[in-house]
Amino acid sequence: MRKDISCLGEFGIIDLFKQKDIKAHDWVMAGMGDDCAVLDLGLNICLVVTTDMLAEGSHFDLKWISTRQLGYRCLMVNLSDIAAMGAVPKAFFLSMGLPKFWDEQGLLGFRDGLFDCAARYDLNLLGGDTIAVQERAVFSLTLLGRSTKDCLVYRSGAQPGDRIMVAGSLGDSAGGLYLLQKQFYRLGDEDCANLTNAHLRPAAQLELGRMLAAQRFAKAMIDLSDGLVQDLGHICARSRVGAIVDADLVPVSKSLRALADCAGLDPLDFALHGGEDYVLCFCVPPELETRVIQTCRTQLQIEITKVGEIVAGSGVKVRQGGAWRKIAHEGFNHFGITKRYR
Amino acid sequence: MRKDISCLGEFGIIDLFKQKDIKAHDWVMAGMGDDCAVLDLGLNICLVVTTDMLAEGSHFDLKWISTRQLGYRCLMVNLSDIAAMGAVPKAFFLSMGLPKFWDEQGLLGFRDGLFDCAARYDLNLLGGDTIAVQERAVFSLTLLGRSTKDCLVYRSGAQPGDRIMVAGSLGDSAGGLYLLQKQFYRLGDEDCANLTNAHLRPAAQLELGRMLAAQRFAKAMIDLSDGLVQDLGHICARSRVGAIVDADLVPVSKSLRALADCAGLDPLDFALHGGEDYVLCFCVPPELETRVIQTCRTQLQIEITKVGEIVAGSGVKVRQGGAWRKIAHEGFNHFGITKRYR
Repeated sequence: MRKDISCLGEFGIIDLFKQKDIKAHDWVMAGMGDDCAVLDLGLNICLVVTTDMLAEGSHFDLKWISTRQLGYRCLMVNLSDIAAMGAVPKAFFLSMGLPKFWDEQGLLGFRDGLFDCAARYDLNLLGGDTIAVQERAVFSLTLLGRSTKDCLVYRSGAQPGDRIMVAGSLGDSAGGLYLLQKQFYRLGDEDCANLTNAHLRPAAQLELGRMLAAQRFAKAMIDLSDGLVQDLGHICARSRVGAIVDADLVPVSKSLRALADCAGLDPLDFALHGGEDYVLCFCVPPELETRVIQTCRTQLQIEITKVGEIVAGSGVKVRQGGAWRKIAHEGFNHFGITKRYR
Repeated sequence: MRKDISCLGEFGIIDLFKQKDIKAHDWVMAGMGDDCAVLDLGLNICLVVTTDMLAEGSHFDLKWISTRQLGYRCLMVNLSDIAAMGAVPKAFFLSMGLPKFWDEQGLLGFRDGLFDCAARYDLNLLGGDTIAVQERAVFSLTLLGRSTKDCLVYRSGAQPGDRIMVAGSLGDSAGGLYLLQKQFYRLGDEDCANLTNAHLRPAAQLELGRMLAAQRFAKAMIDLSDGLVQDLGHICARSRVGAIVDADLVPVSKSLRALADCAGLDPLDFALHGGEDYVLCFCVPPELETRVIQTCRTQLQIEITKVGEIVAGSGVKVRQGGAWRKIAHEGFNHFGITKRYR
């Protein structure tokens, strides 16, 4: 019987592509299932590799993102995966499927945005592929980074009792996307700018990731691309633990609160399930909690917030005012039904 | 004034993406412009990286390729780039943009073809990305390989006097594509099978590439993906030399000759300009010519053929019966006008 792949869902498809009969080579320290793959290059040096594909109509709409912003974003979302390992990005490869009717100015904008981001982090573009496609643009970027073997952070190190921390407010990017999609004009200029900037120009937390890894502060880490609940779920699955998030602790910006008030929505829907924040979420042993908060504040001027705790068991639960908050959907799934655009 | 990117052509677009203000890091031995990028990992070990994007409607049509063949091919075309450096493939990353209406059987076929090829060369799939696209499927594969620093072959080592060699007959893949596209039924079964197999199931010449590199036989090498004239042109450009191809020496299979006879076409149009042969083309110093031919024959049972000579100057010229053959178009260009499907 014919069955559409949308029945499998994104994670069902990924499961199909786990190799069963080929053993991982000796140099493979992490393959599928973490933010990056990790290869042992010897002498305590590791190569980390991540790749992301962005498709027009699925990830972006040129109605509300300029090609320049898109180029910048294309690289930044990959940098965020490198940040989540605590590694240093070095070089990237870019494949572009471009419709022939794209205009040169648009392509130059894309290039400039990409190169802006590359210059900011001193990244070499080392190759790629350029092809014509029929309808919509698609970009695939592969990013290489380096780290030392003993200071990488995986998704798998969380233990019961660990504090769950996030580095910045959550849901702003989803709020920005909502504004762009709905052409929502009832919000003040400053709030609008804060939210749309969070969506259009996210900043990978590379310095933070590196510091948390180097100082052994984080036992498990992930970047939030599909919403706190879903992404924290990946840490839980890999670490074989559960997590309890306290909704009242989840940091929500003034601007997101203003949008939610104005539109009659619950800001926690954005903060718990909104995608593309590219903020780090990590687990810290309880005895280090205060020290980590202080160090982030003094060394990097970053406010980190405890949002919950790792527990024995499995899955992510959200506590709100003494009860469990109902989780309508976990987060973004490319082949599932979501509230989000794509 | 608005200008479509098709005016730039594939290579014009690639030129726009050469970084001007960022210096290559110390570990970068080759970036854009060769079959693979090469990174020095220290201790004489190098990492080689290549990436290719295949789009439905541009590179394949599911009317004449099964998803299983497609999965196999997707990996094989990248392996051919590794072969052209003389390196050993190790691991890959796969990003897939899939329309939601693809059926599960098709996806499983793709997976099985891909894993067949991976098993044949003991390759680890280490990650990727899975997204939904609106219309047509797109695949982006990044392949990592390894080699020792002193036995890699680049495009840039050719010198006047070197013999230009190819490993196998040329144009069969283009002949096969012609058959598939035109649904051409006037050819014998065996010839049909030979040609369509060459197109649907090419085999990267990994062993050959490795041997030519290890024994220092090849001074410059490339795999033929866009036709001899165009790809040899890349060797010429990188080596700052010219090349003269002798059309009468170009190896054309019996099956391709039969197709050309039958369809009233010139087999050399396929052999000189047809893409996707994935056969190695390399330059050998004159004093090694006989030895290389013998060694390939006895050690690997591969017939290699001299098709011309490197000369001072630039560009590729084709000599045919005492005159210069007119070169109508150089080979495949994704954004140009070609005779080929896409």
